Amino acid sequence: MSLNIKPLGDRVVVEAAAAEEKTASGIIIPDTAKEKPQVGTIVAVGPGRAADTGTVIAPTVKVGDKVLYGKYAGTETSYEGKEYLIMRESDIYAVL
Amino acid sequence: MSLNIKPLGDRVVVEAAAAEEKTASGIIIPDTAKEKPQVGTIVAVGPGRAADTGTVIAPTVKVGDKVLYGKYAGTETSYEGKEYLIMRESDIYAVL
Amino acid sequence: MSLNIKPLGDRVVVEAAAAEEKTASGIIIPDTAKEKPQVGTIVAVGPGRAADTGTVIAPTVKVGDKVLYGKYAGTETSYEGKEYLIMRESDIYAVL
Amino acid sequence: MSLNIKPLGDRVVVEAAAAEEKTASGIIIPDTAKEKPQVGTIVAVGPGRAADTGTVIAPTVKVGDKVLYGKYAGTETSYEGKEYLIMRESDIYAVL
Amino acid sequence: MSLNIKPLGDRVVVEAAAAEEKTASGIIIPDTAKEKPQVGTIVAVGPGRAADTGTVIAPTVKVGDKVLYGKYAGTETSYEGKEYLIMRESDIYAVL
Amino acid sequence: MSLNIKPLGDRVVVEAAAAEEKTASGIIIPDTAKEKPQVGTIVAVGPGRAADTGTVIAPTVKVGDKVLYGKYAGTETSYEGKEYLIMRESDIYAVL
Amino acid sequence: MSLNIKPLGDRVVVEAAAAEEKTASGIIIPDTAKEKPQVGTIVAVGPGRAADTGTVIAPTVKVGDKVLYGKYAGTETSYEGKEYLIMRESDIYAVL
Repeated sequence: MSLNIKPLGDRVVVEAAAAEEKTASGIIIPDTAKEKPQVGTIVAVGPGRAADTGTVIAPTVKVGDKVLYGKYAGTETSYEGKEYLIMRESDIYAVL
Repeated sequence: MSLNIKPLGDRVVVEAAAAEEKTASGIIIPDTAKEKPQVGTIVAVGPGRAADTGTVIAPTVKVGDKVLYGKYAGTETSYEGKEYLIMRESDIYAVL
Repeated sequence: MSLNIKPLGDRVVVEAAAAEEKTASGIIIPDTAKEKPQVGTIVAVGPGRAADTGTVIAPTVKVGDKVLYGKYAGTETSYEGKEYLIMRESDIYAVL
Repeated sequence: MSLNIKPLGDRVVVEAAAAEEKTASGIIIPDTAKEKPQVGTIVAVGPGRAADTGTVIAPTVKVGDKVLYGKYAGTETSYEGKEYLIMRESDIYAVL
Repeated sequence: MSLNIKPLGDRVVVEAAAAEEKTASGIIIPDTAKEKPQVGTIVAVGPGRAADTGTVIAPTVKVGDKVLYGKYAGTETSYEGKEYLIMRESDIYAVL
Repeated sequence: MSLNIKPLGDRVVVEAAAAEEKTASGIIIPDTAKEKPQVGTIVAVGPGRAADTGTVIAPTVKVGDKVLYGKYAGTETSYEGKEYLIMRESDIYAVL
Repeated sequence: MSLNIKPLGDRVVVEAAAAEEKTASGIIIPDTAKEKPQVGTIVAVGPGRAADTGTVIAPTVKVGDKVLYGKYAGTETSYEGKEYLIMRESDIYAVL
């Protein structure tokens, strides 16, 4: 489930769940007009954001976390034939 | 009333009151053109916002609080068949 | 004059004076094209804004203060049959 | 010359000079297309702006100061039959 | 060359050089389409900008300095029959 | 692989991989409508961003790193006949 | 190569290289649609930017440095018959 990409700063790499997936907790993404968060699994985490004071603010998510994130969050990339999203930790709403 | 979702940072999960609901305190949302706050109950609270100094600013709301929030605040999601809103604590106007 | 709503952060709840009201100090809102501040009474005050350092900056207004505020400041709500405005302390121009 | 209004934060109350007024120092506002500063007298001063560190930054103007300010600065109000402007100290260009 | 106006914060008062003026250093403002800086002399200087920490950042220009500034910088005013510009120190590009 | 250009602040110089290149890790840039990150190699790194406190925040990438960056990141330049991109470290998504 | 202009803050004065110039290092500015950085030599450097803490952040370039900067960076001026650009240090991409 881990991935050999080292995101910079507060970025994370997420493997999006398949559209029809239903998590262990029973999250279903209903079909309405309003933007819905997406479900995925974190496969790589950066070291954290460097604040203006030089402090590095450690990320609060870890590899393996199931997360909710905004529909348009992140940038798509592919690695060894699989699609991933690279986004900032602040694009993640919650851990399930 | 609690929910097994762990919001990140200063996010909270709110269960919106039904449109016709009237709180114990007697809040009624009158029907005028101006945007009105919505009433709901907090079901999950994040650890708080990480300030630039690295300090985590603890949230001032807790699970079970009845809250007022902006009509367009937050992102809808559903969990075990119920609808919830994920929003930032700063989107909440007041605790009732 | 107090109200059982607990505003968050630097928010306050204001009961707007009736349009024809004239304060004890003799403020009259003349009828010109330019936006005029409104007069009201504070009925609830939040604990203050949490600065980035974690410091909570205490509010400088208190329940019972007659205040001037911008015409379009705040969000309307109603409570036990009366209309109130929830606004940030920074939307208040002055205490009369 | 003082006024019984307590402005909040870094706000001040200014009594605008009459349009034809000429200050003791001899400031005249010539009639050109470019926006000109206005002349007035400060009649009330707030306690100062609360910085993010909690520090209150004391105002550098005081009641009685003749000041120059931008043409569109501030919000008009009236008090005991006279017109005043409530503006931020940063809207003031200079003390004469 | 000094002027009895006390600018606030980081503002300065500048007496613009006549359009045809050529400074001792030989600056000439050529006539091209691109915006050119203007030349003037500082006649009054504020105490400096108050930073968020409460620190006052002292100005780095002084009365008598010949300065270059942006064509549209500042606000015109007149004092004892002469035209001046009130601008922020940050609108000044360089001392000649 | 190093380059005799000294970028300022948090800027880096990147040599973009040829469009058909496939990295050792097997990154392929699929052909879809959505913007994809680009792959390149860092050939020069600035000393880091100077924060407001005067602290220089050291870069977290080094010469030789294979990196992913946004399609429109950076400014093209050429040096001794080769094309390079100068971008900020924050434009880099991840090290491969 | 030095110039008797004292830029303020983090500003520098740059003498742009002639369009056909090729630096000692062999930089050539190819002719494509994308904006290319320009090459020039620094002839004057300000004392550095004053941060909010009052700290002056020393510049990292010096008089005589060959620099790359954005095509539209800075403001043109002329001095003793030569054209110069006044820009902020942050407009400079790299030292060659």
